[in-house]
Amino acid sequence: MPRTYIKDLKEHMGEEVTIAGWVDIRRDHGKLIFLDLRNMTGKVQMVALPNHSEAIELASKVRSEWVIEVRGIVNARPPKMVKEGLNGDIEIEMLDGMVLAEAAELPFALDAELNLDTHLDHLPLTLRTQKARAVFTVQAEIVGAFRDFLSSEGFLEVQVPKLVGGDAEGGAGVFEVDYFGKKANLATSPQLYKQILVGAFEKVFMTGNMYRAEKHSTTRHLNEYTSLDLEFGFIKDHTDIIALETRFLAFLIERLNAHCAEAFKTLGAEIPNMPKEIPVLKLREAQEVIKKEYGEDCTNEPDLEPKHERWLCEYAKKEYGSDFIFITHYPRKKRPFYTYEDENDPGYTKSFDLLFRGVEITTGGQRIHEYDKLVANIKEWGLDPTKFAYYLQAFKYGMPPEGGLAIGLERLTAKLLGIDNIKEATLFPRDLNRIDTLLSE
Amino acid sequence: MPRTYIKDLKEHMGEEVTIAGWVDIRRDHGKLIFLDLRNMTGKVQMVALPNHSEAIELASKVRSEWVIEVRGIVNARPPKMVKEGLNGDIEIEMLDGMVLAEAAELPFALDAELNLDTHLDHLPLTLRTQKARAVFTVQAEIVGAFRDFLSSEGFLEVQVPKLVGGDAEGGAGVFEVDYFGKKANLATSPQLYKQILVGAFEKVFMTGNMYRAEKHSTTRHLNEYTSLDLEFGFIKDHTDIIALETRFLAFLIERLNAHCAEAFKTLGAEIPNMPKEIPVLKLREAQEVIKKEYGEDCTNEPDLEPKHERWLCEYAKKEYGSDFIFITHYPRKKRPFYTYEDENDPGYTKSFDLLFRGVEITTGGQRIHEYDKLVANIKEWGLDPTKFAYYLQAFKYGMPPEGGLAIGLERLTAKLLGIDNIKEATLFPRDLNRIDTLLSE
Repeated sequence: MPRTYIKDLKEHMGEEVTIAGWVDIRRDHGKLIFLDLRNMTGKVQMVALPNHSEAIELASKVRSEWVIEVRGIVNARPPKMVKEGLNGDIEIEMLDGMVLAEAAELPFALDAELNLDTHLDHLPLTLRTQKARAVFTVQAEIVGAFRDFLSSEGFLEVQVPKLVGGDAEGGAGVFEVDYFGKKANLATSPQLYKQILVGAFEKVFMTGNMYRAEKHSTTRHLNEYTSLDLEFGFIKDHTDIIALETRFLAFLIERLNAHCAEAFKTLGAEIPNMPKEIPVLKLREAQEVIKKEYGEDCTNEPDLEPKHERWLCEYAKKEYGSDFIFITHYPRKKRPFYTYEDENDPGYTKSFDLLFRGVEITTGGQRIHEYDKLVANIKEWGLDPTKFAYYLQAFKYGMPPEGGLAIGLERLTAKLLGIDNIKEATLFPRDLNRIDTLLSE
Repeated sequence: MPRTYIKDLKEHMGEEVTIAGWVDIRRDHGKLIFLDLRNMTGKVQMVALPNHSEAIELASKVRSEWVIEVRGIVNARPPKMVKEGLNGDIEIEMLDGMVLAEAAELPFALDAELNLDTHLDHLPLTLRTQKARAVFTVQAEIVGAFRDFLSSEGFLEVQVPKLVGGDAEGGAGVFEVDYFGKKANLATSPQLYKQILVGAFEKVFMTGNMYRAEKHSTTRHLNEYTSLDLEFGFIKDHTDIIALETRFLAFLIERLNAHCAEAFKTLGAEIPNMPKEIPVLKLREAQEVIKKEYGEDCTNEPDLEPKHERWLCEYAKKEYGSDFIFITHYPRKKRPFYTYEDENDPGYTKSFDLLFRGVEITTGGQRIHEYDKLVANIKEWGLDPTKFAYYLQAFKYGMPPEGGLAIGLERLTAKLLGIDNIKEATLFPRDLNRIDTLLSE
């Protein structure tokens, strides 16, 4: 008999079905044995009654995390016995079944509160919780929304390298790779490739792992993370990119409401409202807000500190009812060489960060598309243009005004779900102290 | 005025529009100047007539690959002047416009036949051809189809690490990374992670870069490639995986017909037909076919050589009208330690390769899900189970029968499009001699 998913049991009331999954909890009431069966589509209570000896035999020997297949009848539970949650109004009367795999005794209960290290040391087990499923369902939804939105806007998905040759300029923050005896590095971003590709394909996006060899072990950094990147040409200026990201956020929030309400509920998190308008402040305006509202004078600083970001988000929520706020016009010297300077605001760039619930989740901006200006900037930044000859071809042979942005997937996932530590929004996180040794054959 | 895409010009006959793109070709006929304008949605011919002095001025100074914005009127071309191809029946009468970016003189014509090294040395320019756009449009469609198909089958998309700790077992074929003074490696596949994740999420898929430090410079290998991976639980055996891939191929071929007919035409390639049934042969049966049909006795070999794969594809086409053929039951010792042995055919495994147009494009199979058997195999393969302790947790605590497969994206792209060298189906290919030095800031 083909397997029925737990989520579909309601369509089979009174019928015989075959279901399969992991034993979540087993409750032995003497003559009756209850098993909660769990699979990717939900949980359901099953009962082995004394008159079904094969069911009793199976239910007697299984333990938590054993994998079983069960033949049974789908019954309604008496109204007063209905449990909250998925399929709480259904019970499977077990007829018989088989063990697909046994499980050793667990080192802790799956629903136990664990410290982070224990959690991370046992991911093959701790990822089995409803909470973990909720987190990574939302993460997959973000990635899916990013792609579907950009495809609908005519962007082409591309695959770009992460393995890049040469001496890292400066070298700080870059992992080195031995490439057949030559020096190579792991990319910190697809920036230069995505710009080249605008010259070829005009609108591109990509998702993939990126690497930062920074010696941090914080709650908001990873050494290997997932970057959602886009870049496109024929823009007026950075406001076209801000407008695109605003449309994406509206699209994402709609998708989260449509597909992930249950996951947010599981995690006690709230799907953000899409504000009518996301506020946009220049960095200097934002600093004036901080001075006026929070009494701290940071107007001479070239960047925001974490607490400033938190304050600005608080302010955006209070003043504009928005969980999001764009900060623009970072000083030229605080941004990379390719950042476009605002002709009408010399010394400041057409760049932006998007802050959400206290942290930056996007960096973006218009890039320099004029060859001569780009070469001059590379020199001014103390870099060697000959090392960028390959990249510079894209600009030498005609590049439209262009720009783009990058979103850190794990950080966005964590912030959306109210998860304090980004490592819990990452399947197998790497940090200064943690990198597991799972190399395939 | 908002920009109109070239593909939408037909909806604006007789109207004034603004279009933007790259000058593809310029033809100066004295009083008249013709410009072909190209952007991501197609090409269109524009004409600067003597009575529009601003148009003449613009058309006089621009050259190939200059980026321009043009205001003009959409006219129908006289029937006898209609050119083949997109928008061959339309012409833009230029009114005025502006230069968005100049371009240096090109080192070669964009439509020139180049040798591979010249092509690869100038990718920022050579990716601008219609041919390159066609290749990477099809590649994006494959990735999109893979995701959409698996999502519709209930699979969860996951992000897995490529940076993996520890000494590579043996070390051959693995790139080493300096991870804060410790040894780490670039993953050759997400195999062990995707198996762990079946224990948590039951059905998972992932796309991403993988790495092989093999010193090859062939037409069908890359040192960094894109792997399309899936893995799922509660299977009967490998035939469930073969059935899933067969459904995916039907889905993909439908999508290619719906979205990529033009791209295949550009490349002179044929979208494969989906056969009624894809033939499935055991390796030993396939070797008998080779002996009988091609007169070569390879029945004692543990694997197929490239020419054998070509012959089998030829045979599948002739006998079954299929561009695809599954080969199953590779010998146990030729497959990794986690491969499931067929109880009814000892010494041979429930593994398979999918061959397509002469080469293997997928490897897959059922995996061992029983903890004790897996530990025994690890030992028999001369490996140390303690090094796999993390992975083994997934099996110690209950894993259903499971399996999966991996598809090499670039190889599939090349084979679908009749591209001889896989490097032309890769945006920025890496091989023994080629790794560019484009590290972002």
